[in-house]
Amino acid sequence: MLTKEGCLGRRQFLWERLPEHIDWVLIGDRRHVQYFCNFRVNPVTFSADQSCLLLLQRSGEATLLADNFVRRTATETPFVDEEVIVPWYDHRHSVGNRDHALLKALQQCSSRWATGQGVIETEAVSHMIASVVAANVDFDRLPGADNTLGSLIRTLRRRKWPDEIEQLKLCMQACDAGHRAAFEVVRPGVTELDVYIAIQQAAEREAGCACVVYGDFRATNRKQYKAGGLPTRYELQSGDLFIVDYSVVLNGYRSDFTNTIAVGDPAEDQVRHFEACRDALLAAQSVVRAGVSGAEVYHAASEIFLQRGFPALSHHCGHGLGLEHPEPPVLVSESTDQLLENDVITLEPGLYVDGVGGMRFEHNYRVTNTGAEQLSHHILGLTSNG
Amino acid sequence: MLTKEGCLGRRQFLWERLPEHIDWVLIGDRRHVQYFCNFRVNPVTFSADQSCLLLLQRSGEATLLADNFVRRTATETPFVDEEVIVPWYDHRHSVGNRDHALLKALQQCSSRWATGQGVIETEAVSHMIASVVAANVDFDRLPGADNTLGSLIRTLRRRKWPDEIEQLKLCMQACDAGHRAAFEVVRPGVTELDVYIAIQQAAEREAGCACVVYGDFRATNRKQYKAGGLPTRYELQSGDLFIVDYSVVLNGYRSDFTNTIAVGDPAEDQVRHFEACRDALLAAQSVVRAGVSGAEVYHAASEIFLQRGFPALSHHCGHGLGLEHPEPPVLVSESTDQLLENDVITLEPGLYVDGVGGMRFEHNYRVTNTGAEQLSHHILGLTSNG
Repeated sequence: MLTKEGCLGRRQFLWERLPEHIDWVLIGDRRHVQYFCNFRVNPVTFSADQSCLLLLQRSGEATLLADNFVRRTATETPFVDEEVIVPWYDHRHSVGNRDHALLKALQQCSSRWATGQGVIETEAVSHMIASVVAANVDFDRLPGADNTLGSLIRTLRRRKWPDEIEQLKLCMQACDAGHRAAFEVVRPGVTELDVYIAIQQAAEREAGCACVVYGDFRATNRKQYKAGGLPTRYELQSGDLFIVDYSVVLNGYRSDFTNTIAVGDPAEDQVRHFEACRDALLAAQSVVRAGVSGAEVYHAASEIFLQRGFPALSHHCGHGLGLEHPEPPVLVSESTDQLLENDVITLEPGLYVDGVGGMRFEHNYRVTNTGAEQLSHHILGLTSNG
Repeated sequence: MLTKEGCLGRRQFLWERLPEHIDWVLIGDRRHVQYFCNFRVNPVTFSADQSCLLLLQRSGEATLLADNFVRRTATETPFVDEEVIVPWYDHRHSVGNRDHALLKALQQCSSRWATGQGVIETEAVSHMIASVVAANVDFDRLPGADNTLGSLIRTLRRRKWPDEIEQLKLCMQACDAGHRAAFEVVRPGVTELDVYIAIQQAAEREAGCACVVYGDFRATNRKQYKAGGLPTRYELQSGDLFIVDYSVVLNGYRSDFTNTIAVGDPAEDQVRHFEACRDALLAAQSVVRAGVSGAEVYHAASEIFLQRGFPALSHHCGHGLGLEHPEPPVLVSESTDQLLENDVITLEPGLYVDGVGGMRFEHNYRVTNTGAEQLSHHILGLTSNG
């Protein structure tokens, strides 16, 4: 979970970056509501598609707005000063348009926004909600290059706070457990879906809760050397390479790391490809530290492929991790991003070669001023011997 | 999946209900994008929190707007005439604010909305998007009591189309499989989470894909007779009643049915409570048909409880099922909703009694002009003997 200290700190950071005449902000992106107050519309509930709002005031107060069925999905304590929860459904009367419940909530706390000037998160606050508060909104863009509230918050999200890093570590522990399970289940005759289910189960047992597990759970082979996405009923065959590239989402935050497992004994060329990927990963890892450019990290990995007679790395070398996937910094050939202390990133070089198969290997890291703290601890290798 | 015929039919229904001077509509609710064109932002992917837009024109054309990473999550073919897919991330360059990608998509298809007048789904189209098209939007409310585009679409969603009913049946088959698994796994010593995982696994195997399984997976007993929500690490004890009340979400649509399983042998009073719930369910089912009021269905069930010396049914007797949970009609004591042909509903009487425990039993149905077609086929009962 996010901490009260973290939420208050992030709000303080936001206020320091807003023009002085702004008295309040209205946030609509569910990721950002959580970032600032620890309330998440739980996606593994009946309210997955519904919205909520967070109103922050320069005076320091925070107000959560939601309908009663959205509020019920929370598994954590929101750190707010007031909750305006509108009873949309009471188990006695017919219901109206659920989306309109938030309008009532907004009207109920008008004293918080009807004086002074505010800004709204224009990317995520609906037109309906914006219309209600419009007379008090400063619609001029914020100063700076990233000149909307949404962009400002996305910029703040780059450097992870201690409570976010703790949350990410929980995701990574669950993801580690899934990778251990993958080595046990991958063999000829099982389906991609069998592997997914075994991983999901192991991750949920480790996390102690229901959670979303998504990613690529696909077999490749010498003929079909590229494949991605969710698992199918395809039955694994000896000679296949199974790419286990996935995220465990807990409280909105996510891990993202990969291993590739040989179905049956790996062939010599497959082992050579694995070694190239592993060494590319180590090369990328060795240059990671605050101040280095995303392009430099990409080229460190790609250079290993070129040295061994492979084409340059054909996809990103990695990206930032947090409430979204992918998020900056992106570690690509022409990236203008620079690594920051407390960026949490993934490194994931892969090779997809016609006649051999596809593979990818990946670890997650926290960027420090001197290097990279590895946060994932799964075994990398075509077999469990690494 | 939804069919092309269904999507085109629903669009036709929508146009028939819109004033003649409206030339286009812009839809932002992801449920409604799917309803009209079969494109769903897959929640079991990295794009779960992102948006897309659907632009419909009276001339019959449909245009899907999304970023390239949202588009990639689709597991089905969208039924549209044009896709405007903006390359937000290309694996070579740094990325900007992902939410702004949709702005570019909207500008790229301006010929479709910059002439004539349109309406936007004010509940779900962001202020940012609305600002771009504002000069061509008719912001007057639509005629009728439900006077926004979002409310109109919600009204249309009541009666399910044949393709929706087929999709719902797939959800129910997967949910049936989970209930069969529950009878096998519930016993003293296993955790609520163990039961959840076994059910999730059985549902996913039946469905053949990763999907969201949410609901109540909680033990009650003589002391703690009320509990709801996602599973915990609590270990089941002999004498507990385990409420298995859950939904399987496939392509946005969901099942929702319940059974309650006794941990160990059920006691006599628990069997009496089960029989009252079962008979209340049968009583409610017996009055269901198009034209009956939601209140009448509630009272049919509640009356059984009163006859047997229990208090009136303390929660809803059921509600509509589809893209949302709950949705109209709601079957409650003061409901003004009337059942319609092809409403898909659930009936779920329960008893939560201090000193005995909590239980609930539930089936799903399609409403017909003469009665109810039962869509769920799990065994109702504290033991697998019913």
